[in-house]
Amino acid sequence: MNEFTRLDAIVKRIAESTVRRLSIYLRFLEEFEVRGSTTVSSEELARRGGTTSAQVRKDLSFFGSFGKRGLGYSVPELSTALREILGLGREWRVVIIGAGKIGAALAQYRGFRQRGFNILAVYDSNPEKVGRTLEGIEIRDMSRFESDVERERPEIAVIAIPGEGAQEVLDRIVRTGIKAVLNFAPVQLHAPADVTVKAVNMAMELEGLSFALSNRD
Amino acid sequence: MNEFTRLDAIVKRIAESTVRRLSIYLRFLEEFEVRGSTTVSSEELARRGGTTSAQVRKDLSFFGSFGKRGLGYSVPELSTALREILGLGREWRVVIIGAGKIGAALAQYRGFRQRGFNILAVYDSNPEKVGRTLEGIEIRDMSRFESDVERERPEIAVIAIPGEGAQEVLDRIVRTGIKAVLNFAPVQLHAPADVTVKAVNMAMELEGLSFALSNRD
Repeated sequence: MNEFTRLDAIVKRIAESTVRRLSIYLRFLEEFEVRGSTTVSSEELARRGGTTSAQVRKDLSFFGSFGKRGLGYSVPELSTALREILGLGREWRVVIIGAGKIGAALAQYRGFRQRGFNILAVYDSNPEKVGRTLEGIEIRDMSRFESDVERERPEIAVIAIPGEGAQEVLDRIVRTGIKAVLNFAPVQLHAPADVTVKAVNMAMELEGLSFALSNRD
Repeated sequence: MNEFTRLDAIVKRIAESTVRRLSIYLRFLEEFEVRGSTTVSSEELARRGGTTSAQVRKDLSFFGSFGKRGLGYSVPELSTALREILGLGREWRVVIIGAGKIGAALAQYRGFRQRGFNILAVYDSNPEKVGRTLEGIEIRDMSRFESDVERERPEIAVIAIPGEGAQEVLDRIVRTGIKAVLNFAPVQLHAPADVTVKAVNMAMELEGLSFALSNRD
């Protein structure tokens, strides 16, 4: 790893935790909007996000100048800006690979559509599943994947199959030109640098808890 | 937020990202074990974890002195130590609240048992689900929850129900004395400081990708 890729890795890591906080701030702002609040302070956002007001100001300063000293942030302005920054001002086309329990749970998840994530299809190789629907979403044969992608141009692919076949599926996804992948398979996958792969690992989430339980005062 | 709770929040945040990296290092070490490698350098762990060797050494230094200068880390020693640090040297009893798609996906997830997470039961209030099984795990009536916890003493509870009832369920969990909760409901939950609540939010994972796609060069 040379200096440049190392720096790149650091920048990427900072961005990921910052982006996560922006997502959390946006959720709070939307609660404020529902309650009719028009302004919010960095202290209030910090308190709810379990961080500091300095961190809130720093996070937001990456993306421009928000808020007025002493007056706080305008709730509608800041939430609009955050939606824009997070790429939520548009629709994203998503495909899910794997019609098992995780694929089914994702297909039914209402939060996706609310955020503009439109699930086009679920893919599977099992002939007993192909042709059925999951929450109104068609289960298609995986053999159609490449030709469908060429026609429908999804931007995001979700891998929801067991670990064994996951790298092979990722390679197929990468070859179609899709640049963003959410991986639920419990294995580390390798992709070219211009493809963003985010891993969701259920066992790792529980390990965060077993660590907390093992290291209590 | 006073100085102390602020510091506490910062420490907590560092710990969470460090713990996540420890989980990732452990996965690589287990791959090395399978391949029969006996030593690994901090550079190799860093390369695979998308971080720097300085970060690897810093992460591990929190928990003691590992490795020999110039020789790297012993794979079996370091993986044993990481399992110990992550609280994986024992069995954890887990209950899942909610027998919907997410609850079902979690119940079937083989990675949990491999890591020592033993799912005792799934709870639901729907009479049509109660009494059935999910992958051999009993679905019990939520009305039994408190008395079961008193008898079986689970350490970890997973909330896998929609947002509306989630805070109420968390309050019930907290009253039983359970100190670690994994939350899949897409809402921010409030718990006493001595209860660790980790949130898994599917829409936020996708937002990390829409951000990456929107902010490409």
